[in-house]
This record gives sequence, structure tokens and C-alpha cells, in this order.
Amino acid sequence: LPIRFDDGPDASSLTGFAGNRLIRDAEKRDSGSLAAALADAGARFFLLVGGKALVEKRDGAGRALFSRQEADAFAADLAAAVLLGHDQGVPTLAAPAAVPETQILEPLWLYDLRSLLYSSSVGDADAGAIAQATSLLHWHQMNRFCGKCGAASLSSQGGYRRDCPSCASQIFPRTDPVAIMLAVSGTRCLLGRGRHFPPGWYSTLAGFIEPGETIEDAVRRETFEESGIRIGRVRYHASQPWPFPHSLMIGCFGEAVSEEVRFDAVELEDCRWFDREEVRAMLAGTHPKELKAPPSKAIAHHLIRAWAID
Amino acid sequence: LPIRFDDGPDASSLTGFAGNRLIRDAEKRDSGSLAAALADAGARFFLLVGGKALVEKRDGAGRALFSRQEADAFAADLAAAVLLGHDQGVPTLAAPAAVPETQILEPLWLYDLRSLLYSSSVGDADAGAIAQATSLLHWHQMNRFCGKCGAASLSSQGGYRRDCPSCASQIFPRTDPVAIMLAVSGTRCLLGRGRHFPPGWYSTLAGFIEPGETIEDAVRRETFEESGIRIGRVRYHASQPWPFPHSLMIGCFGEAVSEEVRFDAVELEDCRWFDREEVRAMLAGTHPKELKAPPSKAIAHHLIRAWAID
Repeated sequence: LPIRFDDGPDASSLTGFAGNRLIRDAEKRDSGSLAAALADAGARFFLLVGGKALVEKRDGAGRALFSRQEADAFAADLAAAVLLGHDQGVPTLAAPAAVPETQILEPLWLYDLRSLLYSSSVGDADAGAIAQATSLLHWHQMNRFCGKCGAASLSSQGGYRRDCPSCASQIFPRTDPVAIMLAVSGTRCLLGRGRHFPPGWYSTLAGFIEPGETIEDAVRRETFEESGIRIGRVRYHASQPWPFPHSLMIGCFGEAVSEEVRFDAVELEDCRWFDREEVRAMLAGTHPKELKAPPSKAIAHHLIRAWAID
Repeated sequence: LPIRFDDGPDASSLTGFAGNRLIRDAEKRDSGSLAAALADAGARFFLLVGGKALVEKRDGAGRALFSRQEADAFAADLAAAVLLGHDQGVPTLAAPAAVPETQILEPLWLYDLRSLLYSSSVGDADAGAIAQATSLLHWHQMNRFCGKCGAASLSSQGGYRRDCPSCASQIFPRTDPVAIMLAVSGTRCLLGRGRHFPPGWYSTLAGFIEPGETIEDAVRRETFEESGIRIGRVRYHASQPWPFPHSLMIGCFGEAVSEEVRFDAVELEDCRWFDREEVRAMLAGTHPKELKAPPSKAIAHHLIRAWAID
């Protein structure tokens, strides 16, 4: 048979926020889904306070799921809740909570998404579900009014749709596909340094896929716009949910067909070719100038590692 | 080197609407881009009348790009124009046009997007640019008001952003990633028949990728929700811009790890395993019961063909 599947778990599963195991049952969502879930006494809630996840930490182990009673105590806004899915039949929801940050005292902590990604106290499954929750709740916040007619819209379908009572428009949660790519040329790869990066960091280039564009054309366009390098063939590697606020990173390798870097100095502080040995030192943390590759939960890390080591 | 690139043009380039060759120069868009393009006497315009592309046909050859003078004659709304990109330095724009359909007389024709896909009179490059235009103009129409505060928002950055003068929100054009997948099991593949399909048609399953989900997890979830079939390993094949209204189809193969089909009868009229010989007959148009695979510009066709023939 002509279809070759790679062995082992897919590369996407190695990235951060990919551990979400909730059963979404997307086809079964309807106008009664949220009420039914809220009526379930066993329902569990992720609570977001100012966009950060509430976590109770005891002996290093974190608990990010709370009961209905706890949700009420933390002033969760259940009218704004979303139904993420279920876990062994238990409805799992997320809601913004209005408890003042000054009342978040040990053993309670607030985790922003980046901390969550590298925390050992919240597991990968919960981190993934919190990513889902954050993207959805942000989308609701940015779509309280109908874009077509300006009337206030209402959440429906367990939070997976907003309906306009005035013009009957329906809008669905948004996911922004982003092309993120490692350009390679023989034993070298192309890395750039954004103006906002931590000291020493270099990473792959990336940019939003635009309307009317294939993934491969976006890889070629973005690489050329940012670095001046022409890409020929493109190979998909892995994807990653990226809740800042609701992107889908689509990671690819691109085969460079030109050499001379002319980078966009508005976006980048530097962009150049790196030899494989230098990249290996960056991944190992042994680079003489302390240059670094992105950390292990980032899809950029896995693109770079798959090329340099695997 | 470990990165294997497939030979030849990428599979995405074989799909419909993938032929767009305009240079977008996304990094260079700014608040003056649209005015500068409109001030260029050589600027060319795609014109959309009620969502359909205006085409002038002479001797079978179609022209979908019009001059500024022609755009004015067809009552193009240049305040709502978007800058798609340029072709050899010539700005290429798109605008809705208010000319009444009753005044569209030969040699003028209106092409909806599906007709455009299979027309020989409009080339692939223009069909791709019209897809880009349609997605963008639809997005503007659905986002005239700020979703966050309800105020009227304004187009900026050549039509690639809308700015809210009241709360300063910026929103960007939307592209909805969709997983479309062929589940395979040995010499069989899984095809379904949607309730709205033309007679005899069977196709791959598909569904929107949701917030907080990898492409691979979406392939597994959608296949299971629609057919009851469990998928293990997933392999990306190709992508396709799909301007209905602004999707990005992400085509994958999925390795089935279960056998028994229990399809969702709300969405599907039928869903079953097809042997490779039967699929070849469908592709060749020689199926005894006149069952058919999707037409050649659809990414579903290419997934099915790559498995059954290539």
C-alpha cells in the first residue's frame, strides 16, 4: 500500500498543550448541553481568574479541577461557562471566576499559560484542557456583539456557537492556523531572533496562514518575507494547539533553494544559517556563546530537534 | 539528512483554488497600502457581484480582472476594496460591485465559486485570487461591528485588519482549519455520503478543527464521531484553500484500528468501507451502480486517488 505512516506516537503529541484527553462529543452539542452539564452534581470546573488558571497545590501536586461548590465559592460566572467535554462521563467545564487575586492565598496559585506549560504540578491532560478553555473564553470575550449587525449575541451549543437574536447570524469559535517552519539547506538550518526573545534565543520563523493560501504556499511566503530565503519543497512535521489566544501551529520543514539571508529588521534582530553542530550545542545547553533553542514543549524545539538529532 | 521531501510539486498544488500567484507582501501592509494601490492608474480589480465573480468571456477565454475605469462603470465600492497583492508590480485588488445582475449581459457573465473551479475560461491563478478575495470580503461583511464593544469598526492595512475606533481592538481575517481525512484499513477505505450530496457521490469525512486540538487529534475525533471508526496513526497529505467562506482544508490519511461502522445518521446518509477496486471504478466513472468520487479539484479526490491509484 502506498500510504506510509510514521512509527510511534505522532510528533504533535510531543508538543505542549497537546495532552488534552477530554471527549468533546462535538456532534452531540445542542441548545441544552450547557444546562444539562451544569445540572450534573459531579460536574468539574476549570476556573480562570484574569485569564490565569486557578490551581490548588499540595505537596507539589496541583489540582486544577474544582467542584460546583468550589466554583461558586470562587465567584465563577456560570452563565459564561463553556462545556469542554467529558471524562468518563463526568462533564468538564470552564468558567471565568471573579475572586479577587488578593484572595488567592496558599495553597491556591494562579498559573498563566506559559507557566502551566512548564509546571510539573499540572499534568499534560489538564494543561491541554486549560488551553482549550482559554481559547474559547477569549473568543467569547471578543465576540459579545454580532460582527454583522452590532447586536449583543448569545452563547449556545455549550459555548461552541454564538447566536445573534437580531440578524440570526451564527458564529463559531475561531482557530487561527499559523505556519511555523524550519528552512534547511544541506547541513545548515535557518533560525531567527525576534526582537522580544529572551537573551540568546533563536527559533524557527512563523506567520499566519492567510485566506486563500495553502500551508505550503504560506511556508514559502513567510520564509521569503522574513528572511529573503526561497523555499521549494515543503514537508509537514507536526501541529500544536497554541492558546495565545487561539492559534494552531502547523510545523513544517522547507527545503531552501537560495542562500543569501536578507532579513526583515522590523520583525527580527538577527536571522542566519546555523550549522548542525552549533544547533546541537544549543539544544544541549553547551553553546559557547550561550545561544539557546526554544524549550522542549514548543513545536519549534521539535522541528529543530528532528532535523538536528533524530 | 533525516528530512525526506517528496519529489515533484506538492500535492496541495494539485487542488482547486491553490493556483494563486499574487505576491502578498504581507509584512509591508500598512495604513497607506490601500490608498497607494487605488492611486495606481494600472491597478486591476476583481469584481464581486452578490458574491459572484464578474467575467468577460470572448471566444471561450475569460477575463476576470478589470481596470479602474471598468470598476467604476460596474459601480464597484472602492471604499470596501481589499488589496490582494501584486503581480509584477501591478496592484491587484478586489471590490464588491453593485451593478444589477440584470445588466450583466453577454459577453459578461457571473461565476459562482464552484463554477469557477471547473471553468476552463478562468485560469487557476485567477480562480485562486478570487478565492482569496471572496474569503476576505465575506469576513469584512461579517465583521462590520466590533465583537468586543459593538462599535462600528474600520478596514485598515489594505483590508487585512479591522480596527475599532471605540475600544482599540484589532481583528484579523479569519481562516478556519478543517480536518478532511481518508480512513484506510488494508485494501479498504472509508467513504461517506452526506445528506446534501449529488446522486451517487461518496467522499471523505471532514470537520472543523477545534480550539485546543492538534490536527491529528481532530482527525481521530471527527472520524470517530461521524463513523464510529477508531483511527491510530495519521499522515498529512495536502492542504487546500476552501473559500466557503474561509476554510483551510487539511487533508490526511488515517490508519483505522477498528472495523465496525456506526455512522451518525444526522449528518450522513451512508458510510461504509470500499474496496480499492470499487474506488478505482468510481474514479474512472465505470462504477456499475454509477457511484462517484468527488471531482478532480477537490482535495478529497486527491486523498482518494493517492491511496487508490498513485
